[in-house]
Amino acid sequence: MSGGRIYLDHNATTPVRPEVVRVMTAALCQCWGNPSSTHAEGAAARRALDCAREQVAALTGALPGQVIFTAGATEANNAVLHGVRALCGGGRPHFAATTIEHPSVLEPLRAFESGGARITWLGVDCDGRVNLAEAAAACAAEPALLSVILANNETGVVQDLPAIAGLAQARGVPLHVDATQAAGKIALDAARCADWLTGSAHKLGGPKGAGFLVARSALALPPLLRGGPQEKRRRGGTENLPGIIGLGAACELARADSARGARTAALRDRLWEGMAKSIPRVRRNGSAQHALPNTLSVEFEQVAGEVLLEALDGEGVAASSGAACASGSIEPSHVLLAMGRTPQQARASLRFSLGPANTGEEIARVLELLPPLVARVREAAP
Amino acid sequence: MSGGRIYLDHNATTPVRPEVVRVMTAALCQCWGNPSSTHAEGAAARRALDCAREQVAALTGALPGQVIFTAGATEANNAVLHGVRALCGGGRPHFAATTIEHPSVLEPLRAFESGGARITWLGVDCDGRVNLAEAAAACAAEPALLSVILANNETGVVQDLPAIAGLAQARGVPLHVDATQAAGKIALDAARCADWLTGSAHKLGGPKGAGFLVARSALALPPLLRGGPQEKRRRGGTENLPGIIGLGAACELARADSARGARTAALRDRLWEGMAKSIPRVRRNGSAQHALPNTLSVEFEQVAGEVLLEALDGEGVAASSGAACASGSIEPSHVLLAMGRTPQQARASLRFSLGPANTGEEIARVLELLPPLVARVREAAP
Repeated sequence: MSGGRIYLDHNATTPVRPEVVRVMTAALCQCWGNPSSTHAEGAAARRALDCAREQVAALTGALPGQVIFTAGATEANNAVLHGVRALCGGGRPHFAATTIEHPSVLEPLRAFESGGARITWLGVDCDGRVNLAEAAAACAAEPALLSVILANNETGVVQDLPAIAGLAQARGVPLHVDATQAAGKIALDAARCADWLTGSAHKLGGPKGAGFLVARSALALPPLLRGGPQEKRRRGGTENLPGIIGLGAACELARADSARGARTAALRDRLWEGMAKSIPRVRRNGSAQHALPNTLSVEFEQVAGEVLLEALDGEGVAASSGAACASGSIEPSHVLLAMGRTPQQARASLRFSLGPANTGEEIARVLELLPPLVARVREAAP
Repeated sequence: MSGGRIYLDHNATTPVRPEVVRVMTAALCQCWGNPSSTHAEGAAARRALDCAREQVAALTGALPGQVIFTAGATEANNAVLHGVRALCGGGRPHFAATTIEHPSVLEPLRAFESGGARITWLGVDCDGRVNLAEAAAACAAEPALLSVILANNETGVVQDLPAIAGLAQARGVPLHVDATQAAGKIALDAARCADWLTGSAHKLGGPKGAGFLVARSALALPPLLRGGPQEKRRRGGTENLPGIIGLGAACELARADSARGARTAALRDRLWEGMAKSIPRVRRNGSAQHALPNTLSVEFEQVAGEVLLEALDGEGVAASSGAACASGSIEPSHVLLAMGRTPQQARASLRFSLGPANTGEEIARVLELLPPLVARVREAAP
């Protein structure tokens, strides 16, 4: 897609960066061996895998040996949760997690709950930040795992990870940090702040189909996918070599361009300030101070979010009502509800998420389009 | 890799076909939307996904709605086994499988066994074919699942699937067919012969990181990966769009080139006949009559297989001692042991697996190289 389209849905997925496409195409043509094979073709594939492992480790603040490649963050999150549950053996497992986790954490936990597990849910305040007193109380009960989404996909709100990690460490509670939206946008420090840290290539300019699980914990999790010696027996299945090479390249690019965040934040702020000035009854969702540089969640009072989205799409602007995987759903966002919004307020909210290729001209164009569209949608409302 | 290398390890992985690289590169550049998004970028991605689903369905003899995309055959196999186990609820589950399954079936089953499940293992004869009387007896005990590898990755031996499926259907036993090595090499007919059928792109000219699970059964398996509405809630996680598009293209190419099998078989037969003529004390492993067209497993009596492989690699020929994922392992092949070979015979066996790009000149060159190499390795043996 291009042709004048303005893409403001980078938290759903990002375009693949041209440099990433180049290395992936080269890999598809020339580096297609099976990394488990002993011959020259296999050895070349193994070297490429090792290189990508170093690139992911450098971005996440981990050691290369701690990086396990997966098919994406959903698999990585599922692997952590299932692995910890398996380590609990026959007892009744106890997990703690925030109410604003991604579905790839919420859904396995709910399945465990149906199977008899106990889940402590940590709430957030109206700004979308975890209540630290609740986190302390949860850690005091010493759950088998505390799972925290570092930066929320819908609002961009970033948690106080050093504080949460401190609480977990003080009680010896293993901590899983879902860094899928944070990776490539803010600095990560797995070595200080997480026993397991998960992420995905396609949220940071890499391809869909590749992700990572950084496993720093002394607890060795049994593999979710069994089927061979790959990833030191921590994840079976032939590695997605082109995808992993693309993931590594995307990590390298994100790390090299440390000024990107400030540039994106300036555009995002211009978008919000323009909206606040030109559109009546708008409200920003989530802490502006503790937010990813690229994300803006806005409530347009008394607007049907889906109708506004469709109108924007018709004008060439891609945004989102929240998580891509909830698109088309009539359910209001669980994240906004957790922040105390009403279902109607949640349904009136749109997410704009920027990327490194967005321009000032694009933001200006959206600010031209949006006020009359919002007015039209409000007028048409019953 | 190229530069005069002769690649005879297509059962480990295949080069990605140039046409597949082309469509994948185009997808990486132009079709990178999230299929779950409602906007135009998402809709384009969804259309590409639907197209690939039709291509996989056409190759496997399934309906498009029955195709679930996975990260590969290992995930697909794990998903079937875990799903069936979950359906068994609290009881002691009973599974049946052949002793020559791939590790992605064997390892989950062994883990279930450790957890109290009962597994009935079906043996094979000296030709590598499943004993139908054992299969009938296993089905009579009505296990929750019978899992059968259609074509073995190490020997290429193809099972009598119509007979096995008939036995399973007569007893109402759900049948899982691991078609990973068979897909693209022999005709598949999921609609007649399997409740679940699994496979992988990188064994048929597609990329690593994409696979499929054809789910025909009326039994709806709970998802192995939870985290969103993707694949009609049968598999969570953003779809590996470039990989899936590559998988679809590879399926289409395999289906279009129905003469490929006969061409490959002619080369494979020339290779075997040449060896049998020029090298003393060689024996073919597995049924020659019921074999994939591309696979040749050969025992070189009193040869250390790993040493011969390394010597071949040094001369520019890539072959394998069996499964790629067992490379470097000192364990003898479980498949050859199941066929009654001794550990020494198994360790003296090499697998040559051909692909559509191999030529008569390459086979002639291997037949030149091999006799003196075998003689040298035999002489060097203690």
